Amino acid sequence: MSISAVELVRAKRDGAELDASQITWLVDAYTNGRVPDEQMSAFLMAVYFRGMSRQETSALTRAMVASGEVMDLSGVGRPSVDKHSTGGVGDKVSLIVVPLLASMGAAVPQLSGRGLGHTGGTLDKMEAIPGWRAQLSPETMVEQLKSVGGAICAAGETLAPADRKLYALRDVTATVEAIPLIAASIMSKKIAEGTESLVLDVKVGNGAFMKDRQRAGELARAMVEIGTANGMRVVALLTTMEAPLGRAAGNAVEVAEALEVLTGGGPADLVEVTLALARTMADLAGLDADQAGALRDGSALESWKGIVRAQGGDPDAALPVAPVVDVFVAPETGYVQRLDALAVGVAAWRLGAGRERKEDPVSPCAGVICCAKPGEQVRAGDPLFELHTGDPGRLSAGRQALHAALSAGKIRIDPEPPPPAGPLIIERVG
Amino acid sequence: MSISAVELVRAKRDGAELDASQITWLVDAYTNGRVPDEQMSAFLMAVYFRGMSRQETSALTRAMVASGEVMDLSGVGRPSVDKHSTGGVGDKVSLIVVPLLASMGAAVPQLSGRGLGHTGGTLDKMEAIPGWRAQLSPETMVEQLKSVGGAICAAGETLAPADRKLYALRDVTATVEAIPLIAASIMSKKIAEGTESLVLDVKVGNGAFMKDRQRAGELARAMVEIGTANGMRVVALLTTMEAPLGRAAGNAVEVAEALEVLTGGGPADLVEVTLALARTMADLAGLDADQAGALRDGSALESWKGIVRAQGGDPDAALPVAPVVDVFVAPETGYVQRLDALAVGVAAWRLGAGRERKEDPVSPCAGVICCAKPGEQVRAGDPLFELHTGDPGRLSAGRQALHAALSAGKIRIDPEPPPPAGPLIIERVG
Repeated sequence: MSISAVELVRAKRDGAELDASQITWLVDAYTNGRVPDEQMSAFLMAVYFRGMSRQETSALTRAMVASGEVMDLSGVGRPSVDKHSTGGVGDKVSLIVVPLLASMGAAVPQLSGRGLGHTGGTLDKMEAIPGWRAQLSPETMVEQLKSVGGAICAAGETLAPADRKLYALRDVTATVEAIPLIAASIMSKKIAEGTESLVLDVKVGNGAFMKDRQRAGELARAMVEIGTANGMRVVALLTTMEAPLGRAAGNAVEVAEALEVLTGGGPADLVEVTLALARTMADLAGLDADQAGALRDGSALESWKGIVRAQGGDPDAALPVAPVVDVFVAPETGYVQRLDALAVGVAAWRLGAGRERKEDPVSPCAGVICCAKPGEQVRAGDPLFELHTGDPGRLSAGRQALHAALSAGKIRIDPEPPPPAGPLIIERVG
Repeated sequence: MSISAVELVRAKRDGAELDASQITWLVDAYTNGRVPDEQMSAFLMAVYFRGMSRQETSALTRAMVASGEVMDLSGVGRPSVDKHSTGGVGDKVSLIVVPLLASMGAAVPQLSGRGLGHTGGTLDKMEAIPGWRAQLSPETMVEQLKSVGGAICAAGETLAPADRKLYALRDVTATVEAIPLIAASIMSKKIAEGTESLVLDVKVGNGAFMKDRQRAGELARAMVEIGTANGMRVVALLTTMEAPLGRAAGNAVEVAEALEVLTGGGPADLVEVTLALARTMADLAGLDADQAGALRDGSALESWKGIVRAQGGDPDAALPVAPVVDVFVAPETGYVQRLDALAVGVAAWRLGAGRERKEDPVSPCAGVICCAKPGEQVRAGDPLFELHTGDPGRLSAGRQALHAALSAGKIRIDPEPPPPAGPLIIERVG
């Protein structure tokens, strides 16, 4: 092969556009160990500064898909539709929309991940359910999609292995944040899982990976373009992530809140975002059932039970309860003006709900309950947060995160009610 | 240690200025294998895009010096002065100025390198001398500087090992071209060799590493600043490298041309550049001898013989002669208008004088002689170049490089004489 890795790094460094065959060669040679980490990380940093054209990003995605297997959902006999969130605090929407769409006749092949830092992972949350396991072989997943219409599971080693290797490299070389790389990483897994339709929830705000709307919009457009170019129906919704979604941030506490929504209740903001995403998913899948009805009449809950049972879980077992629950009281009387998602996420993480390093375990019972959300009234001494943990030694670190946010004005109580909140759904792309 | 490599990469990526302790930690941890290649190459690419402040560049240089030994020339009993060139075609100036300055009473500790690509290395040229060897221990070098005043040798493994490791990484990650990295690399070796004074020959033009004057000036200023900050007397001369320096490009053919100058002759351009550098070196070393006189009266030649003998060479032995010498004739009658240094360098390389990869050998007898330099007249059919090689199979590749340059107008013969050439010495920095 006459392509040289250093020449490709130099070309990208100098702002040239690589052609598809060059990108395919690079990804393939890197995945197979013929291009070493140091050349690829220099390439990724050059991409960070130079960006990638639509064609380059698409070629990168296809090369990552081609590095492994692609699932064939054609035998499932239901329209397939998935949903992906870029990650937020209290974001338990997948736990609701997977059974909800399944109950409406869709197949939802939700390949998900674990959390790192202040945002929780869907698999960590599900693992709070006694007996539930995240590992499914592709064959078992297809069978489960046929029988119960949904699966929430870990992406197997055989799907887009190039993405896994590249992500690990980006993580240690400060090259995670490049939009084409984020877009290609997400979309390669979704293309490999074989879904026909996809709704992307791109979170925007202080608690999200994308802090500002412009970059979130860029990421959304990049992903929609890649999906469309690969024959997928894709829509992205930009949704706000300034405060936690719902009241619970953690693992079992989020499952419990998802169950509230699955039984027709739950916090208004969580229900609104869930229904917006579910409606979009149903539209793309060509289903016109009544989403809110499916939550009220118990059919979504039935699908939930089916999915949990199919993966070894007991949907009727009690969820883990924290042996230590501490209350953090409101320091003054007034209206909650601001409730910083990042601060609440960090507090939950410190209490044991999240992990510092990939290999750390998480505590199923740890988390934070927000007793008052922005716009709600509290009196001094009322509970503002409940802190749940399995380890009393972690309480002070959790409290400390919230105290620091109070001091910095990131959690704020004012005498006057806050101005009306902006919309939860900011923009639709695609 | 609480410093994290990925945080330093991110800080540089985002345009922050690192402090000296952070740079020292990074270089030290990289040299000792605690920071892996992939993090360092991402850092280097971020430096390529973001640059380095004067303080950062200086800290990087000091950290590379501190990674190894620093030679102590205080016992030599002569003022020490060295010269470094950024590399050009036909640049045999070191072969002349080392003995010339030695003959004037200086100690010239010339640590030099081998060539790669179209520019030859001083050590490769010297190795054309029967018996001569490039390896000297630091102790032997100091002894030789005392006895004969000059040494031309390979930088030992113990001097600035961080630079060696970093350079090898830059070479494969397209991060060679960043000015702060080039400046720190050159200056770390010169500071480690212990010279009191240094003259830098920064080549500018198509045959040089720096194609344009502005970047060459930036590099010159960066190096002068580093040297000055480290208590060294440093001056940089920007000199032109559009055509080869002198008439010979290769190994033995360049030694032969250097000997012409050492015996009072030689091509005018080579003599002019050599004397400009030698005068600056003498100034910095506080010597006011007559440079041109030392070339004419044989004292520089005597020093040459002493240096060659001290390193095992026979200064009176015949130099290797190519078994195959082919002539490339002028295609038309007129004045040589342009004689592209890069084209001549590539032809010499193809004939065997240079190497493609670091581990390749070079042929001592291979090279190109330019029979006519810019401004000189030729008639169609006159020799324009002599092609010297030890391998007849290489002749066509050498001829092809020159033919391509003729077709592209990089070697050009016009009916009218060219306009007067610009100055050889473009600018003095420091």
